[in-house]
Amino acid sequence: MHVTLAEIAQWLNGAVEGDDSVEIFGLAKIEEAQSGHLTFIANPKYAKYLDQTRASAVLVAFDFPPCDKNIVRVQDPYYSFLILAKKFYHKPCSIPAGIHKTAVIGKNVKMGDNTAVGANVVIGDGCILGDDVILHPGVVIGDHVVIGEKTVVYANVTIREECRIGSRVIIHMGAVIGSDGFGFVFHEGKYQKLPQMGIVVLGDDVEIGANTTIDRATMGETVIKNGVKIDNLVQVAHNVVIGEHTAIAAQTGISGSTKIGKLVRIGGQAGLAGHIQVGDEAVIGGQAGVTKSVDEKIFVSGYPARPHFQARREEASLGRLPGLLRRIKQLEEEVQSLKKK
Amino acid sequence: MHVTLAEIAQWLNGAVEGDDSVEIFGLAKIEEAQSGHLTFIANPKYAKYLDQTRASAVLVAFDFPPCDKNIVRVQDPYYSFLILAKKFYHKPCSIPAGIHKTAVIGKNVKMGDNTAVGANVVIGDGCILGDDVILHPGVVIGDHVVIGEKTVVYANVTIREECRIGSRVIIHMGAVIGSDGFGFVFHEGKYQKLPQMGIVVLGDDVEIGANTTIDRATMGETVIKNGVKIDNLVQVAHNVVIGEHTAIAAQTGISGSTKIGKLVRIGGQAGLAGHIQVGDEAVIGGQAGVTKSVDEKIFVSGYPARPHFQARREEASLGRLPGLLRRIKQLEEEVQSLKKK
Amino acid sequence: MHVTLAEIAQWLNGAVEGDDSVEIFGLAKIEEAQSGHLTFIANPKYAKYLDQTRASAVLVAFDFPPCDKNIVRVQDPYYSFLILAKKFYHKPCSIPAGIHKTAVIGKNVKMGDNTAVGANVVIGDGCILGDDVILHPGVVIGDHVVIGEKTVVYANVTIREECRIGSRVIIHMGAVIGSDGFGFVFHEGKYQKLPQMGIVVLGDDVEIGANTTIDRATMGETVIKNGVKIDNLVQVAHNVVIGEHTAIAAQTGISGSTKIGKLVRIGGQAGLAGHIQVGDEAVIGGQAGVTKSVDEKIFVSGYPARPHFQARREEASLGRLPGLLRRIKQLEEEVQSLKKK
Repeated sequence: MHVTLAEIAQWLNGAVEGDDSVEIFGLAKIEEAQSGHLTFIANPKYAKYLDQTRASAVLVAFDFPPCDKNIVRVQDPYYSFLILAKKFYHKPCSIPAGIHKTAVIGKNVKMGDNTAVGANVVIGDGCILGDDVILHPGVVIGDHVVIGEKTVVYANVTIREECRIGSRVIIHMGAVIGSDGFGFVFHEGKYQKLPQMGIVVLGDDVEIGANTTIDRATMGETVIKNGVKIDNLVQVAHNVVIGEHTAIAAQTGISGSTKIGKLVRIGGQAGLAGHIQVGDEAVIGGQAGVTKSVDEKIFVSGYPARPHFQARREEASLGRLPGLLRRIKQLEEEVQSLKKK
Repeated sequence: MHVTLAEIAQWLNGAVEGDDSVEIFGLAKIEEAQSGHLTFIANPKYAKYLDQTRASAVLVAFDFPPCDKNIVRVQDPYYSFLILAKKFYHKPCSIPAGIHKTAVIGKNVKMGDNTAVGANVVIGDGCILGDDVILHPGVVIGDHVVIGEKTVVYANVTIREECRIGSRVIIHMGAVIGSDGFGFVFHEGKYQKLPQMGIVVLGDDVEIGANTTIDRATMGETVIKNGVKIDNLVQVAHNVVIGEHTAIAAQTGISGSTKIGKLVRIGGQAGLAGHIQVGDEAVIGGQAGVTKSVDEKIFVSGYPARPHFQARREEASLGRLPGLLRRIKQLEEEVQSLKKK
Repeated sequence: MHVTLAEIAQWLNGAVEGDDSVEIFGLAKIEEAQSGHLTFIANPKYAKYLDQTRASAVLVAFDFPPCDKNIVRVQDPYYSFLILAKKFYHKPCSIPAGIHKTAVIGKNVKMGDNTAVGANVVIGDGCILGDDVILHPGVVIGDHVVIGEKTVVYANVTIREECRIGSRVIIHMGAVIGSDGFGFVFHEGKYQKLPQMGIVVLGDDVEIGANTTIDRATMGETVIKNGVKIDNLVQVAHNVVIGEHTAIAAQTGISGSTKIGKLVRIGGQAGLAGHIQVGDEAVIGGQAGVTKSVDEKIFVSGYPARPHFQARREEASLGRLPGLLRRIKQLEEEVQSLKKK
């Protein structure tokens, strides 16, 4: 695709400064861009790259300082960049609509229009797939699974029986949906398996990262609500509920029956204990160990997790501890010598 | 299934209070139960839900206070619930006995009676499968693997050559058994791969979580003994030994050659250094960083892991550090002014 | 294989002490070795096993103290052991050269000589595979992927479109290469997916652990350079760059756009924030939480990560905090009583 800067500005409701006839054929990060690329500055930290960039043009905010590059001023440079990325990068699906001849389809499966089922896909009995669903090679789906329209399931994902997947969901390679919860009764010296009778329900517009695991409920449902985005290698245990538009970074683990509100943000490698609540719009720092419930709009970090400003202050004062020990020793000597007088 | 409360009480050696003719057709958590459901109270914390529950009956302990619900008093409500769950929830296996026509079976494979091999399963040469083994679709098993009777291997699990799996084992989706240990010799500026010559041995009644990885031994065996339960996304390195009936929560990592005793409990996201021992019945807290051996029956937590009561006390005193700094500053000023006098 | 100790010494440029006619048919760890085995002592810690070992011979360093076992003195016992391991343990590949009849190969795929493609492998259009590549069963490779010679891809690995894999690479079971980076623009109350337009590039002699995930770049490339060794269940986010011969232990997570130097060593379960740099030959401790850039050759540990000697000193002084609180209280009382006088 080749377009002029003038056209791009028109798409974005933006204003060009510089040469609006310059031709753009690709997008790139500011430090890697070449001639013909358009880039963006959303974070002022990156303004330092402006002088050296080879990009032919730069998206900036309306209040960005003047400069001698070809720029397009827009309301929100990052979002405008997303709009362009969708235009420049509308990759066609790599597997054609229709059912590959090696796919194994169960009885009484209902397929929507334009569904693409890749090589070696296995679909259980009684499944219902919406229109435009794409199942990449090696996907295995148990009996009576329901998948909404336009959902994309990447290669070698497994979804166990009875689970329900919303529309426009993306599940990345190797993810596991509906494995048994980790539930046992310790009886007569050994763990006896408690049957895991529930399911997993994923809402609409959910994204599940590669090799992430989401356990089915012991009874009832493990629920991931609309718009939730989960990164790679995350563990979601049985009966967890995650509210709308919450985002969870890689390798985080959420223990059984914990309820997370909406618009929560959780950093990488955080761990949440079981049976707790996290309020709406709370923020949990990377590697935090959350041992009790978190109120809404609170930012917690550290182990055990506590309000971030407090955790930071305590961590900083820890650095002063060795010096403190010396000061106390000196005080004790001085008090001792005062007492002798 | 529909049964009366009287029948249920008879199964459980329990005593009904209330209407023993009420019909039960399902099980549910106390806060989610509807009419026709039976629920249970094992943990006194949940007694608060008793008044509001819509369940038709509740399993409680013999010493539970009197109440006006239909109740069944039993020795151990949680274990009784497990017995009922097995009765109400004996789901038939979703794949029929026999070998699916798309499965690829190596030479000299011995299959027990009533084995179910799903679509696209690949079994290497010389494998031995016991009676009633179930291999779900997409499972890949290397040469000379032995699997005991009644073992269930879920979809897309991989087991490499020579490994030995016990009876009544459950391996959840995407788990990896017998990958190479992480062993290299640093020589002339680069890592040279040390061949990983050993195997993995899983005992009887072991459960392995989804996307968990268990590395083969460098030499000899990585051993998971009878009754061990391992959750999702756990890493077990080469030459680790895990004793009977130990339970390990999700995302824990155990480094090479570490030996863990029996009946140990390990919380989520814990990390254990290599070449250490953990004694029988020890408890390791979630996110603990275990850098040295742990004695039997000790509860450790934190980083670096130390006895839990000590870790808690230190974490609590950390919160008092900023105040301490102020007190020391004041003491110094007072001592200074005393010295002047 | 049966060889005399004399022959082994000749292979290794070593010197036998004891009976050089003894026959060796296998290798083992010193504490597990039986008659007929050769073992080694590289770490003086293991010398304590020397008296009890049943091994028929032991590899030791030239400066190892005299002893009454059959020994072979060599420059570097661990490296010599590796040489022997390769001789004793040259396991033939379990899948034969050629394309299994169940494999599904796209259009315009170029295969090198002697390539082995296992059962149910799926290869997209336009892929290029070098000589002697081995793809185990269930591997799924997207369109236009390039794989260098002698690379081994184990069962159920997935590699998405356009990624480039070097020569002599080993990718263990269940690993994911080229999944989407975790990139969203928060706009009008929800996360909108930013297309992930880049790829993953793995250099030569790279090893990727089981169920590890490596995300494609948002734009440009996620790069793992020559000789990098990555353990199981590691997360490598979009646009990360990892320098030559760096080794990363299991369950570590590296956030987006972070650049890691060469010959860096990273312990298990470490977490690295995004957009930071780690200098060459730095060492990052297990479970460290690296929140800012690390200089070359520095050893950092703890959360937040700081120089290891400092972290250790602070952790140790933390143990003295409760005692400190008592001492300060006493000081305050003494100063109070001095002031009264």
